[in-house]
Amino acid sequence: MAHEQHRQLIQTLHECMEACNHCYDACLKEEDVNMMAKFIRLDRECADICGFLEQALMRGSPFSSDLAAVCAKICEACGNECQKHDHEHCQRCAEACKEIA
Amino acid sequence: MAHEQHRQLIQTLHECMEACNHCYDACLKEEDVNMMAKFIRLDRECADICGFLEQALMRGSPFSSDLAAVCAKICEACGNECQKHDHEHCQRCAEACKEIA
Amino acid sequence: MAHEQHRQLIQTLHECMEACNHCYDACLKEEDVNMMAKFIRLDRECADICGFLEQALMRGSPFSSDLAAVCAKICEACGNECQKHDHEHCQRCAEACKEIA
Amino acid sequence: MAHEQHRQLIQTLHECMEACNHCYDACLKEEDVNMMAKFIRLDRECADICGFLEQALMRGSPFSSDLAAVCAKICEACGNECQKHDHEHCQRCAEACKEIA
Repeated sequence: MAHEQHRQLIQTLHECMEACNHCYDACLKEEDVNMMAKFIRLDRECADICGFLEQALMRGSPFSSDLAAVCAKICEACGNECQKHDHEHCQRCAEACKEIA
Repeated sequence: MAHEQHRQLIQTLHECMEACNHCYDACLKEEDVNMMAKFIRLDRECADICGFLEQALMRGSPFSSDLAAVCAKICEACGNECQKHDHEHCQRCAEACKEIA
Repeated sequence: MAHEQHRQLIQTLHECMEACNHCYDACLKEEDVNMMAKFIRLDRECADICGFLEQALMRGSPFSSDLAAVCAKICEACGNECQKHDHEHCQRCAEACKEIA
Repeated sequence: MAHEQHRQLIQTLHECMEACNHCYDACLKEEDVNMMAKFIRLDRECADICGFLEQALMRGSPFSSDLAAVCAKICEACGNECQKHDHEHCQRCAEACKEIA
């Protein structure tokens, strides 16, 4: 079945979504949220598209590859931003995003 | 703000999402669901991406145009299928999809 | 059909989702994002559940009333916070949330 | 962090979402889709709320427990239906749903 061919990608998306949501949550609790505004926005964009693609892959959507291309672009943007920042949650998020991209 | 520039598109997406969800609901109640399997699947794909793009536009996502390109492709596929079918809910869905595509 | 009985609620949810997403977007651009962290989080919670309930109503989900109860609670929390703040986007969001709640 | 307290639940939701999406996909390909209409609908309801709750838990949503209560109810309904059916994908889905409920 479709979702078995994509098991590895689904797992990677799941981890990226988790890292992005964690980073989003942690950024909103940082002392200087201002510096974090860009990450907060990108974390959400990234978590949302990862979750969307994950469901699409799981149900064998005929549009998975189109969605995957957009997802890779968003993950790359999010990873590039997050790696600029020292927080451990940002670094972990950056790695997860790069893995997808 | 971003969401005001896109007000017309947001409204059209909203109507398409409604038509697709209505068509999905109605197809699942038809006597011959077998004939409807393809529509059921496409209706869901289409409603989901319309809802996703709608939210992205509303929050000024920097990836709106990438998502819009995928959405247009899915709407076109859904519209092409639905127009083949006489049911009023399919015809309404086809029109709404074509409007987006 | 189910979605017609709920047309008024669907429209109100749509407007609330729009106000929340707009407020989220605007809060992330404010000079003092720190003050806004709580709104940013609630705006997202609220926009997400409104979008989810909207789709559920549109497809005649048998769980619409359970989802509506959770949605009302989240809208109330978001409206209560946003009304404390003078920004026009917060006030507009508060009103839309109260309308649902 | 919030998402770590809930790691086990997140994993179970992920597996349930996968089983439901797989069952949805497989039901749409069965010879007698008519018999499957109820499952197709419930599978989607269940996959959607599992995905929604998963994201909510990951981002430390203050409304996770309200969403979890609705999710448990939907999983129970889906599990009760799917267990009536012999298909291996339905049985697997039923087990995953019961696990959550």
